[in-house]
This record gives sequence, structure tokens and C-alpha cells, in this order.
Amino acid sequence: MKAIINIALKNGVLDPAGKATEHALNSLGFNNISGVRIGKQIVLEIDETDKQKAQEQLKIMCDELLSNTVIEDYEIVL
Amino acid sequence: MKAIINIALKNGVLDPAGKATEHALNSLGFNNISGVRIGKQIVLEIDETDKQKAQEQLKIMCDELLSNTVIEDYEIVL
Repeated sequence: MKAIINIALKNGVLDPAGKATEHALNSLGFNNISGVRIGKQIVLEIDETDKQKAQEQLKIMCDELLSNTVIEDYEIVL
Repeated sequence: MKAIINIALKNGVLDPAGKATEHALNSLGFNNISGVRIGKQIVLEIDETDKQKAQEQLKIMCDELLSNTVIEDYEIVL
């Protein structure tokens, strides 16, 4: 089954890329944009038919490898 | 209103970071993982009450700045 993992910086963690993007958008005339935050979206195929088991395995993968839980939050979408 | 923009590499475009992540997961014992693709998720606040107008403006931002439409697809979620 297909799984999507969204990884975002925690609130309060500085996001220089997001800030730079926000400034660039404002410079292009899009003045109604604020609070730009840039995260990652990982899409993968997991060979597991049990949704519950897939969720548990993906949680371990996020904690061990995919996300830095000190500064990032993640969300698993199955 | 809050907007989410998901940016992913088009099918057929090589994704070395995704491949490396896939190898790393397999090395850690997660052998049921394949097809790992890593994209970006941009979250922002757009000061616009009309959903249709927001969608149109975000489309222009994606085409002009946020995504490289030669190699990337994007999806706007409002």
C-alpha cells in the first residue's frame, strides 16, 4: 500500500528557506503571503496489507531514520 | 487561509535522495519498502477569503517560483 509521510519543522524552529521563499514571493508582488514553512513529503510503497501494522512500522522508520524528532514533527497518511 | 502545496518529482525523473533513503531503510531491516520518492511540502498563510482566487494566485506562485515544472508536479490543497 502507498504511504505518505509529511515532515515539518516544529513551531519555533527557524526556517531560513521558508523565510527566503516568503521574501521572494513578496518581492514578486504576492504581498498576501505569510508564515511560509518548507517541509518534506516522502511517498513510498509498503508491502503490508494490515493498515495498523503498516502504521506501526512507519512510525518506527520515522523515529529511527526519516525524521529528526528533536526539531521535526511527522504525520503518516495511509 | 492556510494553504498546503505538495511538490513531487515527475515520474521518470531520478530521485537519488529517495533511492538512498530506500537503501537505508532496507539496511535497517525494513525490506517491505520500495519506490521511495522525496518531495517538498510548503505550508503558508494566504490573506484571501475567496477560495477560487487563492487557488489561482497559488497556481501562479507555483509556476513562477515554487516549483520547477520541467521536472516537478505540484498539488495545491486549501
